[in-house]
Amino acid sequence: MQKPILPKGTRDFNSEDLYKRNYIINIIRDNFSKFGFNPIETPSFERSETLLGKYGQEGERLIFKILKSGNFLKNIDGKDFEFSNLAPKIVDKALRYDLTVPFARYVVQNQNNINIPFKRYQIQNVWRADRPQKGRYREFLQCDADVIGSKSMMQEIDFISLFDSVFNDLNLEGCLIKINSRKLLYAICEINDCVDKFGIITNQLDKLDKTDVNVVKNNLTENGCDKKIIDSLFEAIDLSKNFYDNLKEIKLYFKSSNSGLEAISDIEYIFNYFSKNKLIKSNLVFDISLARGIDYYTGVIFEVIPPKKINLGSIAGGGRYDNLTEIFGLKNMSGIGISFGLDRLFLLIDELNLFPVISCNSVNVLILNFGAKFSYDLIEIANFLRLNDINAEFYPDSISLKKQLNYANKNGIPYVLFYGDEEKEKNCYQLKDMKTGNQETLSREKLVKTLRGN
Amino acid sequence: MQKPILPKGTRDFNSEDLYKRNYIINIIRDNFSKFGFNPIETPSFERSETLLGKYGQEGERLIFKILKSGNFLKNIDGKDFEFSNLAPKIVDKALRYDLTVPFARYVVQNQNNINIPFKRYQIQNVWRADRPQKGRYREFLQCDADVIGSKSMMQEIDFISLFDSVFNDLNLEGCLIKINSRKLLYAICEINDCVDKFGIITNQLDKLDKTDVNVVKNNLTENGCDKKIIDSLFEAIDLSKNFYDNLKEIKLYFKSSNSGLEAISDIEYIFNYFSKNKLIKSNLVFDISLARGIDYYTGVIFEVIPPKKINLGSIAGGGRYDNLTEIFGLKNMSGIGISFGLDRLFLLIDELNLFPVISCNSVNVLILNFGAKFSYDLIEIANFLRLNDINAEFYPDSISLKKQLNYANKNGIPYVLFYGDEEKEKNCYQLKDMKTGNQETLSREKLVKTLRGN
Repeated sequence: MQKPILPKGTRDFNSEDLYKRNYIINIIRDNFSKFGFNPIETPSFERSETLLGKYGQEGERLIFKILKSGNFLKNIDGKDFEFSNLAPKIVDKALRYDLTVPFARYVVQNQNNINIPFKRYQIQNVWRADRPQKGRYREFLQCDADVIGSKSMMQEIDFISLFDSVFNDLNLEGCLIKINSRKLLYAICEINDCVDKFGIITNQLDKLDKTDVNVVKNNLTENGCDKKIIDSLFEAIDLSKNFYDNLKEIKLYFKSSNSGLEAISDIEYIFNYFSKNKLIKSNLVFDISLARGIDYYTGVIFEVIPPKKINLGSIAGGGRYDNLTEIFGLKNMSGIGISFGLDRLFLLIDELNLFPVISCNSVNVLILNFGAKFSYDLIEIANFLRLNDINAEFYPDSISLKKQLNYANKNGIPYVLFYGDEEKEKNCYQLKDMKTGNQETLSREKLVKTLRGN
Repeated sequence: MQKPILPKGTRDFNSEDLYKRNYIINIIRDNFSKFGFNPIETPSFERSETLLGKYGQEGERLIFKILKSGNFLKNIDGKDFEFSNLAPKIVDKALRYDLTVPFARYVVQNQNNINIPFKRYQIQNVWRADRPQKGRYREFLQCDADVIGSKSMMQEIDFISLFDSVFNDLNLEGCLIKINSRKLLYAICEINDCVDKFGIITNQLDKLDKTDVNVVKNNLTENGCDKKIIDSLFEAIDLSKNFYDNLKEIKLYFKSSNSGLEAISDIEYIFNYFSKNKLIKSNLVFDISLARGIDYYTGVIFEVIPPKKINLGSIAGGGRYDNLTEIFGLKNMSGIGISFGLDRLFLLIDELNLFPVISCNSVNVLILNFGAKFSYDLIEIANFLRLNDINAEFYPDSISLKKQLNYANKNGIPYVLFYGDEEKEKNCYQLKDMKTGNQETLSREKLVKTLRGN
């Protein structure tokens, strides 16, 4: 006998989970549509070459690799018997690690069939061999929207509006939408003459939300950033905390860097829109300490933090990337995109009690079973109701009434229907409302009306 | 530079594909709900032990296996360096091969939280390392509904009604729903004293739809079935072709087998219901040659064949299984279920031109871009329309009008909105219907009304 166990870091979803998840997913999907995005889907696995070398050493380690079919050791000899040598030879496919690289592959492969600017959304699972923890699983759903083929800053504003629109529909008040530009981080390095430290600085800044600031500063020192660099970096971060009040000083700080000044005017362009057109439910802040761990971002970056008091990490993020399709041979395709992580959003909505009342069962009426002689009748009644768009089921066995009612109760079925000798004789139906206990004798016509709620 | 290529047997789906696929999926899902099924989902991969040993030698070969993370060769020495030895040691997970075995695992694992009879549907991908061909892919979507925990034959009737209801909603006329019982095939072996040949006979019968009958007969002979057995088998098959007319002779044929006679009365029970309550769009036939290749079926089995003239194999199937949860330690849980294969259904609906008009783009209006000075206005107008439930996008760059209109045309966007100096001054909006070419000057209020179609 085998034990029924799930693989580490994975989950089953029951109906209640799914109805709740779908509540969020549908709001995200509807907003993607409202903002002009259309769906695409890519396969769950890609050729190894497509995924490998895209996510850095750390990411690479987390990719699930699929063994070649058949005799995967064919043409391999004993000297390959070392795992880092062997892996690339016995593996030719790997599970999707995110939706962005497959999207870049899709755009290049379909470049003659898509219209530029190309706006797509993609709501699909990704897989990472990460250590499971609260809100982090090895299979999880990402909800991405991207537009590729235009450098217009109007899109940065549009994605911020999209975040806000989703949160508005979820009744989620007080999320913090942080923005920054990777160009500013680069400019800080230019100004401090430490462009070689760009990777270390973004890497360490990315840890600031989980790590004490002094630890981060120590790490920077240990990695060769001197006090002058660190002080200058944190001076910029401090200035960024109040964009409009410090705007003059910020511009002064970046005065020797053209790309820095440009990036500041990009941020200003965004802020100016939202000073006239207020966000509905969210707050926009500029934060130079925002770095985003992912290497492909080149311009404005986003990260969304839950409302105060909820300790949950970011629930969404994104940014602009200028060179993503280049690895597949298509240059000059600036893109920008965002991603919602469903699991954290779920935890947040749950913790804030923002789920509407969601039934764990979609059945509207259970037709009770009073013996084999009614079997055909029950099936016929069920099919009649279904033809009238009513979700109906019959109890398949003529067990005790108590047990059948118990089944209806446990499943949260709002109505049960009695159909026995008396009803058959009189050609009528007894409907019981499980909540109120009210019982009514109805004609077929009235039955449909009542169950439809009109 | 890397070539953007898909793994063998997999597909990208563009928006049009997805809107069409979703048309079918939604009809199937709605019918599952109407018939009282609720959704569950299981992870894409399961522990190897859960899947291996369940699908026969042939099936096993087709399972995609996932390499252990990290140093998968740890604790393995050179003498394991042979692929059939090595595979089980370096693999601990595998991609889902069907939805039934994970469902059985789910039922046993959650036996204390589910209500029996337990009705669930599951619409998820499965993966098989099969040779790709028309309508057969390595990643494909299955749509399953099962009920577990009751032996009631009312359920067999219900699933046949469910097939018919789905086809009715798809406007798909003339599908053939074949039924048989595995018990009858077993009874034929009992009657002919060749119970040891049960596997071979079901296996060969399963090939009848693709293989000439004489080849099948030859194969049976070669596998040790003598002429008497083969003649008797095909006599039963012939009799089954007209259930009611031959009912007396069929009963005579099975008179020495109690389980055979029981199975015939099961079939009669089903036929009697549908002789009183006609199927809407489909035809029900009894066919003793129907075997279903999958070993776990123990009772009534189903298979659905497209309407005449369409050569496409079966589009749905299913059956009753008595012992599926037993491998995971839960006995006496008879179940019955069906599965729709989305890809073949898609091909069929496409070939018969039964898809309704489906747009490949959900955007209702494109707001044209006449220069940077209108940028904030365009974003604001778009957000206003979206708040009024209209799918809207702006063109992000102020390129030539021709190119912008071309974008709207290629994407099938029904309306474009002009907003330039004149409109801004007069506080109005020019809306152009791309189909008729009609152009109207509208107030904001009228704009919303027109775009909403009222």
